Amino acid sequence: MQLRELSFAERRDWLRLTRTHTVGPVAFRDLLKRFGTAAKALDALPGLIRKKDIRPPSLQQVEAEMEASERLGIRLLAACEPDYPAPLRAIDPPPPLISIWGQSGLLSKPCVAIIGSRNASANGQRFAGRIAGELAEEGFVVVSGLARGIDGCAHRAALDHGTIGVLGGGVDHIYPRQNEDLHLEMRERGLLVSESPLGYRATARDFPRRNRIISGLCRGVVVIEAAERSGTLITARYAAEQGREVMAAPGSPLDPRTKGCNRLIRQGAALIESADDILECLAGLPDTQFLEPEETYEDPPVSWQVAAKEIESAKTQILDVLSPTPSPRDDIIRASELPTSIVNAALLELELNAEIAVEADGRISGLY
Amino acid sequence: MQLRELSFAERRDWLRLTRTHTVGPVAFRDLLKRFGTAAKALDALPGLIRKKDIRPPSLQQVEAEMEASERLGIRLLAACEPDYPAPLRAIDPPPPLISIWGQSGLLSKPCVAIIGSRNASANGQRFAGRIAGELAEEGFVVVSGLARGIDGCAHRAALDHGTIGVLGGGVDHIYPRQNEDLHLEMRERGLLVSESPLGYRATARDFPRRNRIISGLCRGVVVIEAAERSGTLITARYAAEQGREVMAAPGSPLDPRTKGCNRLIRQGAALIESADDILECLAGLPDTQFLEPEETYEDPPVSWQVAAKEIESAKTQILDVLSPTPSPRDDIIRASELPTSIVNAALLELELNAEIAVEADGRISGLY
Repeated sequence: MQLRELSFAERRDWLRLTRTHTVGPVAFRDLLKRFGTAAKALDALPGLIRKKDIRPPSLQQVEAEMEASERLGIRLLAACEPDYPAPLRAIDPPPPLISIWGQSGLLSKPCVAIIGSRNASANGQRFAGRIAGELAEEGFVVVSGLARGIDGCAHRAALDHGTIGVLGGGVDHIYPRQNEDLHLEMRERGLLVSESPLGYRATARDFPRRNRIISGLCRGVVVIEAAERSGTLITARYAAEQGREVMAAPGSPLDPRTKGCNRLIRQGAALIESADDILECLAGLPDTQFLEPEETYEDPPVSWQVAAKEIESAKTQILDVLSPTPSPRDDIIRASELPTSIVNAALLELELNAEIAVEADGRISGLY
Repeated sequence: MQLRELSFAERRDWLRLTRTHTVGPVAFRDLLKRFGTAAKALDALPGLIRKKDIRPPSLQQVEAEMEASERLGIRLLAACEPDYPAPLRAIDPPPPLISIWGQSGLLSKPCVAIIGSRNASANGQRFAGRIAGELAEEGFVVVSGLARGIDGCAHRAALDHGTIGVLGGGVDHIYPRQNEDLHLEMRERGLLVSESPLGYRATARDFPRRNRIISGLCRGVVVIEAAERSGTLITARYAAEQGREVMAAPGSPLDPRTKGCNRLIRQGAALIESADDILECLAGLPDTQFLEPEETYEDPPVSWQVAAKEIESAKTQILDVLSPTPSPRDDIIRASELPTSIVNAALLELELNAEIAVEADGRISGLY
């Protein structure tokens, strides 16, 4: 990706495109690849989306969000801009635009996530606070999700050195209420990050995208307490997929609150018992970890005019092979036995028309 | 090793040789290899041992132990006999003779060790009892060390199905006192095993040998709670050296009683949270695990008459390379740059004369 600052008009176009209901990070990347700029993609959208209720927000709407952000001191940072954090840009695909509020300089420091259960034990919370404080003293920025329990303890312990909170809702939407003081302090001394529009209130389905940013910002993710089925484990999975270190604090087999951590360790996560263990684990990482991947094309770019018919028939074929369980894009390409470029174009149109569901990590399922 | 039953006289000779103060399992094996039989080794001993205070017990003494054992129903089982447990015979070298008291049939069943801290938490003890009971129900014989804490809980929970207790002292010496009821019950329904003479009271230095038998009897060793420096970890190390599975239950980083378990997991032990986890871990083991290793000789057998001088000079050289930290025999052979047979003969004489210390696992250190 060629790094450059966006103009006002470009930033507005990026925002319009990314605020379009069915344009997730995968569709955004594919649209930019296909049409070259956000403006041209916006022009092409009506030809790709047949449903009347799916359309980009108006110029007025996005300009209002930009003005409100500016008034509050919130920046909208695009994935192609130099200040956008390199580790987050390295995930595939990165969030096109993030809102940031607070000490933006924290984004250029090495980050480590400390995450865990909202209903953590007193011991778990104490441990999270202890290692967060020690990692912050060692120069790491502690990243977490501003939730109750482990997240809040980690943020509070690291606040003096700067800490990053990633939100599922808008960067100005305070949730949960009992962390209001923390939210306000982090605007001043830390940094708040979100992919969601200003004022937006998160629902359950927004948290996977938030979790993906938490891991994406970091060299490694430390899980303190997590039950067997827990959103925290999703973050750990993203971290592994993104090539980041996964670390977990073990717990007694009799404690249901640590079952998820023990499982992660069994699956290969590093067992950690102290900040030193974490530092040791992260010390082994190469500095080149976040170099941009070279863009690769499996097929020569397709000629869209000619391919319209093939794309239409590919859509039918793809819908046939999808299931309620999300599949990786590569599996769908293989199963379809069609050229990659045709499948990608068909998937883009299906996504834009809300005919398939695309997960935060790009896996795709049918709608049932 | 050619399996066969010993005659009365042979068993008496084996007992005399193994009850000689400086004849550990390594020296016993080397003496048998060199002289062919225990009787011939006993004949040769005066020529090898120069210290007057080191000599085999009298015929009367060992016959008294044999008679007392028989009276109580205790068997003396030699490593070459068919009833001697195959997994224990496979360790290098096996204890030449073990005393067994109780249900000897338990020795032919698959065994798993459950071991841990004497000062275990209430939760740790409950967990040990739970998995011991479940493993016993699944047909495994639970092996442990009859100590307070984890050991006692494991034995008690498995008693209905048969459990094996390995003692540092004589098989008839009740220790600790608070496990007297358990000791008595295990003579009836379980099995007691020891390498020590009848009536012998164990000291701290006897426990490594006991621990080596615990792991040697088993397909795997499960550690429930163990602090950072703990005898339990020695058993786990023996298990790893003997090619047995090492399993450990994790614990909170804030609990010093589980630091040793967490370290084992970090070093590659399987993290277990239930009896099912243990069964799964043990299920992967091949049935051929305990086949006898082929005896190999690196050098042709040395001619002892001719080599006496070389052995004498090798002894000096070996004493020079030893240190207070035990070294593996192979390292000493390499460092000496002498033929293996000469070094082995020199080490045997040094051991018999108490001029070096040989650990339960065969590693050797100087005396300081």
